[in-house]
Order: sequence, then structure tokens, then C-alpha cells
Amino acid sequence: MNGHANGAGLASRGTVVGAPPPKGGSVDKAADFANYFCTYAFLYHQKEMLSDRVRMDAYYNAIFRNARHFQGKTVLDVGTGSGILAIWAAQAGAQKVYAVEATNMAGHARTVAVGNGVDHIVEVIEGSIEDINLPEKVDIIISEWMGYFLVRESMFDSVIHARDRWLKPNGMMYPSHARMWVAPMQTSLGEHKVQEYHNSMSDWSHFLHETSSQYGVDMSLLTDPYRQEQRKYFLQTSLWNNLYPNQIIGPPAVVKEFDCRTATLDEVSSVHSSFRIPLDSGHQSLCGFAGWFDVHFKGCPSDPADHEVELTTAPSLEDSTHWGQQVFLLHPPISYRDGDILNGTMEITRSTYNHRLMDVNFLHNLERPGSRPTEQVVSAFFIE
Amino acid sequence: MNGHANGAGLASRGTVVGAPPPKGGSVDKAADFANYFCTYAFLYHQKEMLSDRVRMDAYYNAIFRNARHFQGKTVLDVGTGSGILAIWAAQAGAQKVYAVEATNMAGHARTVAVGNGVDHIVEVIEGSIEDINLPEKVDIIISEWMGYFLVRESMFDSVIHARDRWLKPNGMMYPSHARMWVAPMQTSLGEHKVQEYHNSMSDWSHFLHETSSQYGVDMSLLTDPYRQEQRKYFLQTSLWNNLYPNQIIGPPAVVKEFDCRTATLDEVSSVHSSFRIPLDSGHQSLCGFAGWFDVHFKGCPSDPADHEVELTTAPSLEDSTHWGQQVFLLHPPISYRDGDILNGTMEITRSTYNHRLMDVNFLHNLERPGSRPTEQVVSAFFIE
Repeated sequence: MNGHANGAGLASRGTVVGAPPPKGGSVDKAADFANYFCTYAFLYHQKEMLSDRVRMDAYYNAIFRNARHFQGKTVLDVGTGSGILAIWAAQAGAQKVYAVEATNMAGHARTVAVGNGVDHIVEVIEGSIEDINLPEKVDIIISEWMGYFLVRESMFDSVIHARDRWLKPNGMMYPSHARMWVAPMQTSLGEHKVQEYHNSMSDWSHFLHETSSQYGVDMSLLTDPYRQEQRKYFLQTSLWNNLYPNQIIGPPAVVKEFDCRTATLDEVSSVHSSFRIPLDSGHQSLCGFAGWFDVHFKGCPSDPADHEVELTTAPSLEDSTHWGQQVFLLHPPISYRDGDILNGTMEITRSTYNHRLMDVNFLHNLERPGSRPTEQVVSAFFIE
Repeated sequence: MNGHANGAGLASRGTVVGAPPPKGGSVDKAADFANYFCTYAFLYHQKEMLSDRVRMDAYYNAIFRNARHFQGKTVLDVGTGSGILAIWAAQAGAQKVYAVEATNMAGHARTVAVGNGVDHIVEVIEGSIEDINLPEKVDIIISEWMGYFLVRESMFDSVIHARDRWLKPNGMMYPSHARMWVAPMQTSLGEHKVQEYHNSMSDWSHFLHETSSQYGVDMSLLTDPYRQEQRKYFLQTSLWNNLYPNQIIGPPAVVKEFDCRTATLDEVSSVHSSFRIPLDSGHQSLCGFAGWFDVHFKGCPSDPADHEVELTTAPSLEDSTHWGQQVFLLHPPISYRDGDILNGTMEITRSTYNHRLMDVNFLHNLERPGSRPTEQVVSAFFIE
């Protein structure tokens, strides 16, 4: 499966291996490492994220335009990677920065701190944030924890853990807020995926015939599970894509928002939301849903940011990011008429076999002025 | 990294995640599962292997042309996958077949056994061969355990374990023998890889400049580790390729052979071999080494096969396999003259951080008739 292109971009966020665990096994630390963390141990991946200008600008501006927040303060960088946020925090005036990194990228972060003359401020600690110990609590927790569609990778769990354990009562979070957005979209991607799916099933038919006629074994009882696997892969797995703004055919809706200072593990572990979006006239075809996120750096109520900064991953011609958007395709697309309104609910829950992956369910129909609404449709997806 | 194409083919064998494990962590069962076994849980991958005509023909012929070996016997299939070998063994007359499979593919093997009316003979057991228990010892162990260049994945360790625990004293192994081959080769792949490497380093220079001028952080101390990572990835990692026979420019040499009935874990854990290969005249350029394997089904000394079967993965126009060959590229290629002889040793040892991956080292030079031999060169590679 690793050889298949999915969507139009290189997966720059952590690879997450998505297959059921062994019988009787649980997803333990070593498995979590093999499944997830290991991608971040490569400099190439760090560079990909460091080359995302929009991401870099947002964090850079958030820190340096609000340097006042950092001056003389103690900071914790959760998942420091190459150390960039920790070093910026030090350069902005922090008196001490703890930079925690689970992979052996930590060694490189240490090197970069030395190379930038801030190793007397930045202390790199290699280990899981849930396991390490700090000598003191901190004033600020900074972290770049957002996965595709915000929640993939479930890294914010680790940030919550760090916050509840290490943030001073009047401390602040960088970023301070996060939001998830959904919007109706148009695309031709669906046709390609459907074709790939049909090719795969046609291929399967040939395979069945060969295996039976040449090798005397009837594998037809596997057609249903094979179909299910291929449907999931080609039709139900969300795609990474960098959408054009004109592919969005109705005003986006917020489906989740939380305050990073107060959000609980329970709160962030799932999304249940409804939306009601008038569809743009002139398009006629609802091809799927697009999902993206933004985060804000607002400081905290008792000490707001002098300069609020937003990092958005909304479709954009010039300001796209390595996160792209997540695309959930409808097969077939839904025809609609001018005036129709998309009514729906979206539910995101964590995969039972890997908490870093998501199950996404949409329940949706169209409201039509002067007519009966259309039948509700359930569309199930997976963020792998 | 997962998005990069490496060589010309889809990796149909088990994906093996190759990054250092967490500090203090060992590669335990759950990690091994996440790292390795999980790919085999997909029907798509099983189908890929079942669609390899050369592989299927070899095992099919080995079993049915030697059905006498199976009639009335008890058989163990190590790593049954979709159950194909177990079902063939039953169809050939086995009275009982234990089919062990570590992934939940076991459920599908059970389904296929039922669908082919052999479920009263074939008993599918889900679990690691090292952990499960059988009610009795067996007459034959059959398994398709070979990875790229035979040893990648190190699955034969599991077969040895099964043999030592479950094979009757006079039992036999299917296949019975295995050999690894190496040959000098020519290709233009090397130029592409070198170009990709240079592009990557050039990209890094731009990245360094941007990060320094725009974001005030000097990452130049990471240039050496980045270069090392990229050299390993582009220049030192063996490639999968289906070579044309005319790309082989000298007679192949056997670098390893063992009897599956008697080989020890120690014996199969490494390869140390020398070779001396006259290079074909007219080519002039030694671009690298090609590695492949064959296995044989000979039965056992006390009960040889009526019809010996060979499964070879040597370069072939019409009989290529999903294993392809492993290609180890020399940068730059080595020029040679008519009459030159390639002298070398090859050492394969298991990666310290993942026993399913390999470190491969060649020490080589050219003997030239009437002249001094050339300087010895060390060429280090990784099978990832």
C-alpha cells in the first residue's frame, strides 16, 4: 500500500501505520514509536516542515511580535524536533527553555541550540513528554502539534498532559486556540478514485479466475472482504490535497473549537457537530467535504497578546501549507439546485485500533426551498 | 520518506520501518508487528504475491509433482497468509495441515479453506509461530519466507524455530535449499540517484539560507548529518529493480547457500563471502552489484523429491518475480578494461536497530592481467 499515491501531495506529517494490532496486543510505547514517531526522526521530514513558509511565519511572528510574553520567562517546547521554536523562544528573551523531543532528533536540536549560541538557555530533553521530569513548572508551553485536519496524530493529548503537569496556574499556551472547519467542495478527484476502485475489482476478477483455473483454488469467498478493503482504501479514506479556493462551494462552518488552556482530553478526543451551509449557485455538484483548521496565538485572558497571530490552513492560492486540507469524497457526487442548503452533522472519533487515526462520519441531506428535503445519507470515512 | 519512489517497483514484500527505536526501548513484539507484520494483513498485498506467476508455479509444481511426499502426512505452513500453500498441501493428500499466520489474515485463510472444502484438514492458527502450540510434530514444513535478496525480513528465523520445535526427526522442508547470488551489473539508475542526491543538497543550501536570513536561525551544523542521511537514502540504500539479463556483465557467483533442514540461526544471520568474476568485454563500466536468490525443492536425503523444482529470481525477460533483484549502485561507476576480473568480498549483517533490515558491505577491486590490481574500495549499503 505504501507505494500508492493518495491525493496530490507528499505526506509530510508523521506516518501512522494503520492496521489492526496483534491478537491480545495493545498499542504500547514501542509500537507507538514504530507506528508514529519514527518519521520525525528524519532530518528530511523536519526540513519539509521547516520549509513551510506559512507555518514558519506564523510561529515566528507569534513569538517575536509578542516577545514581551517571553522575556525572562520559562518555556516548554513540546515536540521540539529540530529545536526551532525553542531557539526562537530563547532569542525572544526567555531565560530558560525546556525542549522535549521523543526521537533522536533531540541530538540535532541540541546541536542547533549550540550553533545559535542559546544552549545556555535551551535544554533539550530526549524522551516522551509523559515520561520526562522538569525541575520546575513553566510560564509558557509552545508546541506545533497540529496534524492533518488538526486532530490526526492526536498529539494534542501530549500537550494537555504537559500543560496539566508543567504549566504554572497563570501560564499561557502558544497557540492559545484551535478551530476545525468544514466546507462543501467540488473536485474531479472522485472520478479518478472510482475508476481506480473499479480497476482494482476488475483486476480481482481476473485474479480469481487465474487462481481457480491455473491453481485449483477458489478465492471467491474473499471477494467481499477484498471489496471492503478496496472501498475503504480508494473511496473512504480521506485524501490530502491543496485545494483551490474556488473549489469551495459554500461558506465554511466551524465544527470544533477549543481553548488550549482549558481543553480536556475528553473534549479533544472526538468531534460532534452540525452545520447548515447554503450551496453556491451555478455549480450543481456537491463532490465532497473539505476539512481544515486554524490556530490562534492570543496569549491568555490575564495577559493577552500584543499582536494576535493566526495560522490558517484554509484553501489558498498563495498561502498553502504542508497540511493541505483533508478531502472526503462522495461517490457519486450529489446534484443540487440553486437555493439548496447542505444540512449535516459530522462525527469524528478515534480509531479503535490506533488512537492516532480517525473515523469520520457525515450524516447529510439537502434542504430545498419550497420542496421536501432530500433523504439523509450516511457517509463514512477514515483518516489514515 | 514514504512518498519517494525507490527503484522501479511497488514494494510487495513486507514493509519494514527502519528508524532507530526509542531510547531504552527494545524492538518488542508490538513494535515488530507495527514495523513489519502489518503489511501482510492487507488482502491487496496477499493478492500481489498470489499474482506472481513464477512464485505460484514453483510452489504448485513442487507440491503436486511431489504429491507422494504429502499423501497421508502432517504438514505445517509457516506464515500461511491467505492459506494457499496449506490448501495445496491438503489437495495433494495431506491428512492434516496446521496453517499458522501472525496477522488477522488468518481469518481469511480459514474462509478460503472452507470455500475449498479442506477445512476438515487445514487448521488455521492465528499467532506467532514462536508462541503457538501444536498437538503434534509434523512431517513437512512448507513456507514462503523469502524476502528481497532472500534475507530481508529475516523470516527464516521463524522457520528455523518452527523446524526445531515441530519437525519430526526425519521430516522435510519445502523448500529444502536456498542460495544467494551476486553479479556485476550495468545500469543508468546511478546517474538519476546522484542527481537526486545533488538536488537534495542544493535544496538544503537554499533552506539554510532561508532559515538564516528570514528566521534568524543557523542550521548549518546539521549539514553533515543531513548529508549523511541523504547519502544513505539516495546512494547507499539498495534498490528494488527487475533487471534485464543483458544488464548482468559477468557470471554470477553464489555468496551463500544453506540446507533449510540443518541451517542454524547463527548460520543464516550473516553472510561473509568472496567472489572472483571475470567482467564481460565490451561494456567498460561496472555500475554496481545485483543480488538475488533461488530456492530448491529437493525433498530430503532419505526421501528425495521425484521432481526437483527450482524457484529462481535471477534477471529474466519473461519470468520476473515480485522479488525483483536488489541493486547496489557504485558512485561513480568503475571503468574497466577487457580482461579485468572483479575481485571482492561481501558481508551482510543485520541492522543493529532492526533485525529485519541489513547492512551490506562490499570490499572490491579489479585484477588486471599484466598489470597491478586496482586499489581496494569499500562500498557500504543498507537494505531497508
